[in-house]
Amino acid sequence: MQEISEERFIDIPEEVIDIYSLWRPTPLIRAQRLEKLLGTPARIYYKYEGTSPAGSHKPNTAIPQAWYNASEGIKKVVTETGAGQWGCSLAFACSLFGLDCEVWQVRTSYDQKPYRKLMMQTWGAKVHPSPSSLTDAGRRILQEDPSTPGSLGIAISEAVEVAATHADTKYCLGSVLNHVLLHQTVIGEECLKQLGKLDETPDIIIGCTGGGSNFAGLTFPFIREKLKNRLNPIIKAVESAACPSLTKGIYAYDFGDTAGMTPLMKMHTLGHDFIPDPIHAGGLRYHGMAPLVSHIYELGLIEAVAIPQTECFEAALQFARTEGVIPAPEPAHAIAATIREALHCKETGEAKVILMALCGHGHFDLASYEKFLEGSMKDLSYTDETREKVKVSLAKIPQIAS
Amino acid sequence: MQEISEERFIDIPEEVIDIYSLWRPTPLIRAQRLEKLLGTPARIYYKYEGTSPAGSHKPNTAIPQAWYNASEGIKKVVTETGAGQWGCSLAFACSLFGLDCEVWQVRTSYDQKPYRKLMMQTWGAKVHPSPSSLTDAGRRILQEDPSTPGSLGIAISEAVEVAATHADTKYCLGSVLNHVLLHQTVIGEECLKQLGKLDETPDIIIGCTGGGSNFAGLTFPFIREKLKNRLNPIIKAVESAACPSLTKGIYAYDFGDTAGMTPLMKMHTLGHDFIPDPIHAGGLRYHGMAPLVSHIYELGLIEAVAIPQTECFEAALQFARTEGVIPAPEPAHAIAATIREALHCKETGEAKVILMALCGHGHFDLASYEKFLEGSMKDLSYTDETREKVKVSLAKIPQIAS
Repeated sequence: MQEISEERFIDIPEEVIDIYSLWRPTPLIRAQRLEKLLGTPARIYYKYEGTSPAGSHKPNTAIPQAWYNASEGIKKVVTETGAGQWGCSLAFACSLFGLDCEVWQVRTSYDQKPYRKLMMQTWGAKVHPSPSSLTDAGRRILQEDPSTPGSLGIAISEAVEVAATHADTKYCLGSVLNHVLLHQTVIGEECLKQLGKLDETPDIIIGCTGGGSNFAGLTFPFIREKLKNRLNPIIKAVESAACPSLTKGIYAYDFGDTAGMTPLMKMHTLGHDFIPDPIHAGGLRYHGMAPLVSHIYELGLIEAVAIPQTECFEAALQFARTEGVIPAPEPAHAIAATIREALHCKETGEAKVILMALCGHGHFDLASYEKFLEGSMKDLSYTDETREKVKVSLAKIPQIAS
Repeated sequence: MQEISEERFIDIPEEVIDIYSLWRPTPLIRAQRLEKLLGTPARIYYKYEGTSPAGSHKPNTAIPQAWYNASEGIKKVVTETGAGQWGCSLAFACSLFGLDCEVWQVRTSYDQKPYRKLMMQTWGAKVHPSPSSLTDAGRRILQEDPSTPGSLGIAISEAVEVAATHADTKYCLGSVLNHVLLHQTVIGEECLKQLGKLDETPDIIIGCTGGGSNFAGLTFPFIREKLKNRLNPIIKAVESAACPSLTKGIYAYDFGDTAGMTPLMKMHTLGHDFIPDPIHAGGLRYHGMAPLVSHIYELGLIEAVAIPQTECFEAALQFARTEGVIPAPEPAHAIAATIREALHCKETGEAKVILMALCGHGHFDLASYEKFLEGSMKDLSYTDETREKVKVSLAKIPQIAS
């Protein structure tokens, strides 16, 4: 019901607020040492979501999703995960409400990043490498290629199949959908109050975008204020140059998963069969953008920019060495865009207020930092050639007039 | 000067408070879900230090140590680290004050736990596996045994040698010493205020003890209140059953390092040449206890208990699945003792208030959780036979009457 609700506000259940209070409100911090390093007159603030037990903003939606399921008598939820941020958050949430949790994790991540898997298991979840022999979808793919590395699309198919064939089991998703973005707006609502106490008004708000939930979480409440003419910030989405759904994608109906099992969604898409290059920001490797974020981009309420990963890691290093927090590769994109804006302010002499979403820490991404420090990280970019292929792929999908 | 100061209070420098504000005050949280799981009438509170960028209480002393060094014109600090918590904290602190930082990390940890090393490098520190060929001490040991796994004692020798032979370089230590314990008391001072706001009075205060700095940080301000008859909590130090310096050690003068290079300190010791079993709580594998903690134990102001590691991991799992945070193996010892007290309250029906030090998260200790979940973790205990050997080893050291 939340997915299609027309209500402007939906109360957060008491039990969810109670769990949130373990780490919320999250800190809003002025990056004074970064400002000094850059020599900018800008004032930079970051809203840090990495203090949650799972280390990112994802528990903001995992907790209500688990609670709603538990309170309606569901015994088990299933999901897929890539690098593991979302799987960890759902495992954590389920442990608090006594729900069974089963996660299909893309096999390459399952094998290469054992810590995220161990975190899920510590919270009591069952984790399967995907494809697995537990589902028809998994068995079919294993028969074709027993050594397949797996993909998010395959993992979704397996989790959805299990939910579809078990009455007491539901499927959960960690981004893209309307109700997920709704749950994340707790970030922006808190931030409005925190900035108010500091008597600060943001001129620019910056967040990274994969599926769109972190970005929407911080910015949607500010967009409400903007539409009411109470604030007038420039709002900027930052995506990976290797997976630029907003800046290079096509606005069209497309599937949410690779296999084409989900309902069609109108969104900026690189094509549901597009496989992004293996960049280090796993959370930004999604072919589509949340329909709500896509919609406001079309309305001109937000801007978007795509940044290659080496600039992001350079920015992340500057941030870690001045502000302390080692950021995940995803918010490193927001940091890179923030530094661009701050250096622009240095040129113009403007003392703008920049607000940035720092959606998680990089404790489990240190191997990526190693690659960058060694100098062996490469930039991977989306090409126009690929874009032509998307058009062909989308031409097969029935488009509905908006 | 802080090491031998007779002042009751020493102000925290403005610049240090400024850095602390990135994550301080740390949260004081009531463990309501754990209470419910245990069915105890006790009220359990935990003071959580894992929200610091390095993930533990260690930056509380790394920041002032780096600041005092930087403000006196020192260009470089050196230290040793085992599993890496202390090395990470000092690397983080040095990055903020533009100090060079060089860390000698015990070779087994350097090879087996690459993430902590990568964290230090991300903050700009140089990390060497110890023994290294960069020092006389290291070269001598490598010549004897080129494949040695290294030890904390050897790593200390290397760092101290570098500091002793370079005028602009100082050596830093992360626990045991008086000034380190002093810096950590920010934890307890904050906690006194936080409990005051909640109108709660602790009946029992529990912290784990390795070198003693986390334990002292939380409890020393409460001991002041106890001595002034304003509070009367039972204060309990929890150590590893494999390294029980308080409960099984001898109170005598001993060296702080294995090689016998430091000044002698009067402390509870298992002998400076004692090598503890390879338990998973690396931070509790120290042969001696801080002289100040040893002193108040002798005065009867605190109690001590030693707990084997499997009980601690069982407790950590209960904690993670109710409160969310996955604890490091060291504070898992405090959690195990807290659960014992809470279950005792269940028997007696007493609604005691238990305050516990949760000094860090376990993000880099998940391999230990894996061992526990697989059922392959063993308890390792100190024996009376070992104790007899300590007496022989200590007999060689000149003892000074107190």
